[in-house]
Amino acid sequence: MMRTQPTVQQIAAAANVSPATVSRVLTGSVRVTTGARQRVYAAMNQLGYVRRSVRKPERNPPVVALVVCEPMARVFADPFFARLATGAETELAVHGSPMPILTVTRDNLPAIERYLLTDGADGVLLVGGYGHQQVGRAVAASGVPVRAVGRPADLADVPYVDVDNRGGARTAVRHLLRSGRRTVAMIAGPRDMPAAADRLAGYREAMAEAGAEPAAIAYGDFTQASGTHAMQWLIGRVPTVDAVFVASDAMAVGALHALRRAGRAVPDAVAVVGFDDAPMAALVQPALTTVRQPVEQLGRIACRLLLADVTEERPTSGTVILPTELVRRRSA
Amino acid sequence: MMRTQPTVQQIAAAANVSPATVSRVLTGSVRVTTGARQRVYAAMNQLGYVRRSVRKPERNPPVVALVVCEPMARVFADPFFARLATGAETELAVHGSPMPILTVTRDNLPAIERYLLTDGADGVLLVGGYGHQQVGRAVAASGVPVRAVGRPADLADVPYVDVDNRGGARTAVRHLLRSGRRTVAMIAGPRDMPAAADRLAGYREAMAEAGAEPAAIAYGDFTQASGTHAMQWLIGRVPTVDAVFVASDAMAVGALHALRRAGRAVPDAVAVVGFDDAPMAALVQPALTTVRQPVEQLGRIACRLLLADVTEERPTSGTVILPTELVRRRSA
Repeated sequence: MMRTQPTVQQIAAAANVSPATVSRVLTGSVRVTTGARQRVYAAMNQLGYVRRSVRKPERNPPVVALVVCEPMARVFADPFFARLATGAETELAVHGSPMPILTVTRDNLPAIERYLLTDGADGVLLVGGYGHQQVGRAVAASGVPVRAVGRPADLADVPYVDVDNRGGARTAVRHLLRSGRRTVAMIAGPRDMPAAADRLAGYREAMAEAGAEPAAIAYGDFTQASGTHAMQWLIGRVPTVDAVFVASDAMAVGALHALRRAGRAVPDAVAVVGFDDAPMAALVQPALTTVRQPVEQLGRIACRLLLADVTEERPTSGTVILPTELVRRRSA
Repeated sequence: MMRTQPTVQQIAAAANVSPATVSRVLTGSVRVTTGARQRVYAAMNQLGYVRRSVRKPERNPPVVALVVCEPMARVFADPFFARLATGAETELAVHGSPMPILTVTRDNLPAIERYLLTDGADGVLLVGGYGHQQVGRAVAASGVPVRAVGRPADLADVPYVDVDNRGGARTAVRHLLRSGRRTVAMIAGPRDMPAAADRLAGYREAMAEAGAEPAAIAYGDFTQASGTHAMQWLIGRVPTVDAVFVASDAMAVGALHALRRAGRAVPDAVAVVGFDDAPMAALVQPALTTVRQPVEQLGRIACRLLLADVTEERPTSGTVILPTELVRRRSA
């Protein structure tokens, strides 16, 4: 279906800026305020502007940028990103595509936007966090295909790949209930993160289907230290707790520390299930029962779909959800 | 000083390929064998070809690529790269420059070369490992300014920034000798890495100036496991060892494990000094005395010099060596 391309004048009118400002945004000029640039992107999106016509033809093989909206230090510290980048790069190497990685912070957000709008990449893999909405809008407005990894909180029109966070959480909680646990608590992730919200929803669903009440819910920020604090709080709040489902392996390792300090044997007194199957899950004592996310595969499939969007006339667009699986070890 | 630009015909003759092949290399075409491409780069270097004339003008602000010639998994696992990338990105954000990160492997080397030769970046920060010679030659031949981080093993004409590995090692060994240690061994890094060779040279120099013989030298690969193995070997070979200088903190942590298992108290029976001041150095028991490398600063200064090369007519070119310092904690 072809749409009529809106004119620069129409975009300028909708954004309440001059046509010259729209031109400057389209050519990636630095001489535009952030506010004006945002209004122009919003207008381009609203009017269905597709920037293909003014772009250079894609390079062959295309360049796929991995844009991670997290601070550099966190990107390096969290094994999720290493696994994702490794999977993506492996797939792209098959096609001869290079994969520049960019991290987005408050300080470099305008620079990254400009880079992506001025032929820095022929396709963008976008991983959420601070600024991903702004980057996603800008890239989508420029006509460069974009695919999110993980369900975006607020980019309804961006196709994505994700793992079945909700189903994985249900499986974990059902495993705890079937093994005879009565008082199953949860350590959840940040409330504003879609993956954390989905895992919490899965916990609630599995408890409800068993006719059980959620014992207690503590919130962490996916770091090990937050898992320790959350577990200490849970032990104090619900002393009879005999199982905990934790929304990440890093937090689960923190919970194991808290349980050891409190003299609660794992799994005899308290069973623990994590989420990720990060490298550390197999190394801790006791080894962690967890929900495996196929992160490398997520990176590979995201790249395969994105390359199809870049090189084919008709975008594939559909969202893909990969299954998760319970990996049983010692902790539950 | 202006040099006369060699012609495509002259390059073709020197490389023993057709002029059409030279043109394909200059335009980044995929239809050139690796062997032919290498010969063309070598000829371009030899004849002093500077590709400025065929390049687009640099973007403003320029794009600086961080090219790390190591597998993705290692880049994420070694805190050196996180610190380096953080420092570089912080400096570039000040100038409004984005920093795409690329990792080079056997599989994607041709894709990365092509990317760098076809306006992927206006300047390249190059970190050594597999393929860095090939990437460095290709980039230098294309006229894009390049600066190595760490002394390159085999790119004599590429300017670099480095830390004073040799001086840092001397300081560490002098500290062990002055505190009364008699039998000072070393766990060195891979023999083909310049940083490892420089640290070993510093150990030998400090021992020689004290009139002492090197007690024993074991070699690891900078991983924690290799440090454990090396320390076990040293204990068996020189049972009287009372100090060890280790060429990285990761290997030093491995050495601490081996000493604990062997029942040798640190620092009472054996003193240990590492190298890096990685985050783990302050966290292990006992906390590690080590040689601090200013890695973030290394990244910042490398970017500052590279930006000057990109934006100014006269390259700065000079090599810069940053000082290291001994950080005294519990282990020595």
